[in-house]
Amino acid sequence: MRERDRKFGAARGKRTGGGRARDFRAPSGRDGPVILYGWHTVKAALENPARHIRRLLATENAARRLTDEGVALPAPPEIVRPDAIAAQLGPDAVHQGLLAEADPLPSPEIEELSEGIALVLDQITDPHNVGAILRSAAAFAVGAIVLTARHSPEATGVLAKSASGALEHVPLVVVQNLARGLAALKERGFLLIGLDSSGESDLAALPLEAPLALVLGAEGKGLRQLTRTTCDHVARLELPGAITSLNVSNAAAIGLYIATTKLSAAA
Amino acid sequence: MRERDRKFGAARGKRTGGGRARDFRAPSGRDGPVILYGWHTVKAALENPARHIRRLLATENAARRLTDEGVALPAPPEIVRPDAIAAQLGPDAVHQGLLAEADPLPSPEIEELSEGIALVLDQITDPHNVGAILRSAAAFAVGAIVLTARHSPEATGVLAKSASGALEHVPLVVVQNLARGLAALKERGFLLIGLDSSGESDLAALPLEAPLALVLGAEGKGLRQLTRTTCDHVARLELPGAITSLNVSNAAAIGLYIATTKLSAAA
Repeated sequence: MRERDRKFGAARGKRTGGGRARDFRAPSGRDGPVILYGWHTVKAALENPARHIRRLLATENAARRLTDEGVALPAPPEIVRPDAIAAQLGPDAVHQGLLAEADPLPSPEIEELSEGIALVLDQITDPHNVGAILRSAAAFAVGAIVLTARHSPEATGVLAKSASGALEHVPLVVVQNLARGLAALKERGFLLIGLDSSGESDLAALPLEAPLALVLGAEGKGLRQLTRTTCDHVARLELPGAITSLNVSNAAAIGLYIATTKLSAAA
Repeated sequence: MRERDRKFGAARGKRTGGGRARDFRAPSGRDGPVILYGWHTVKAALENPARHIRRLLATENAARRLTDEGVALPAPPEIVRPDAIAAQLGPDAVHQGLLAEADPLPSPEIEELSEGIALVLDQITDPHNVGAILRSAAAFAVGAIVLTARHSPEATGVLAKSASGALEHVPLVVVQNLARGLAALKERGFLLIGLDSSGESDLAALPLEAPLALVLGAEGKGLRQLTRTTCDHVARLELPGAITSLNVSNAAAIGLYIATTKLSAAA
């Protein structure tokens, strides 16, 4: 994404925040703004009462569609031509006539997690992958995604677009140190399952129980050694074909499917 | 990908090909070349006896790693500096010191398919998604991927990189007309299951049998009407969360997991 005009940051300083962990999603400093574009992404943000929208740009068509679908707007949008939006996002962004600048959402503390399924991302840096993982997490009603302040993409732009609105549904818990984050989950009763193509157990054959944290490593590198040893089990997906490692968002999707199915069968 | 130096096409004309369907994967004409970069992608191509490599560029480190891992080379690589590869691919390509120019692989005719699972892609245009789908297809031992000559990305560059070597394992069947392709599969005994978030049945609850074709639609648009009516069933994935549609490669991965599990349980 291109460097954007600083004057759009005029509404900065509304959120005072508390420490670094809450601020990683800001592309230009600790208070944002977060850039949201595309129909699903912006519509979900407008429908999220917890999301403060600073500014909304819309084409005439997109503004009409928002009205037609009964989406409540915080203020009348600034009606612009499509190329005014494209000029802020770069040529490859599929913006569908909508661009919002918003505050980051609050991030819960890891100590607030207590039930269901959490996903933990160990240095997954590609924003398309993290966005797709968020989208699947929202589809499987995941309670939270835990990720590190460093080596994670910001929750804005491409990530938000790939998440297709899921950023409004799944809280992101940002930790400074993943091993300590995993230890905090374990203390709170979470079963920690790392997913790795070299895992010793088949995930589908493991006894699973909630609360459950599925831990995913980066493409290529996989889970780091300390992450791996902190997990209760390192499991693999049983893959019968010539390739034994999946795109990380595809692995996450299958892992969530298996975990959700097994937990609901056990309930 | 940038326009490349035409002299690299010097080996053109070796394959005469037979009609358009075999040629969609060529970025610059019906005989290619196909551009392959990245460790897994190039290594898998070098290890595929059916893949004719025209030219191989490698950094010193990458060439040494190929030798260390015992990968047989068709000819000594041209040793180059990393920026010579980057200059051909653009700044965002993670090439890991390897770039190959190759002939397209042969595409089987749809009439040659008779068993197992096939994936059918209905105008999925994003090369990252199609690459990730190929990778999952190879992992689940899918027999072939059927896609249309138009509205599909070429099997080169970003798609090949995202497929991480899977292009060498899963044949691509290119058809001019998807409805006719589906009819041909049906004639050959395939059960045709469309996957769509609006599907009337839960895929996991449907009785499935091989040979089976899973049909996936484009992001946003989903399955086209004619595709939908040609399928024996249109099924959805049961998603308990706030979002009911997944990234298409994530949906494909879960669909393949369910189908593979059900078919092997039935066998």
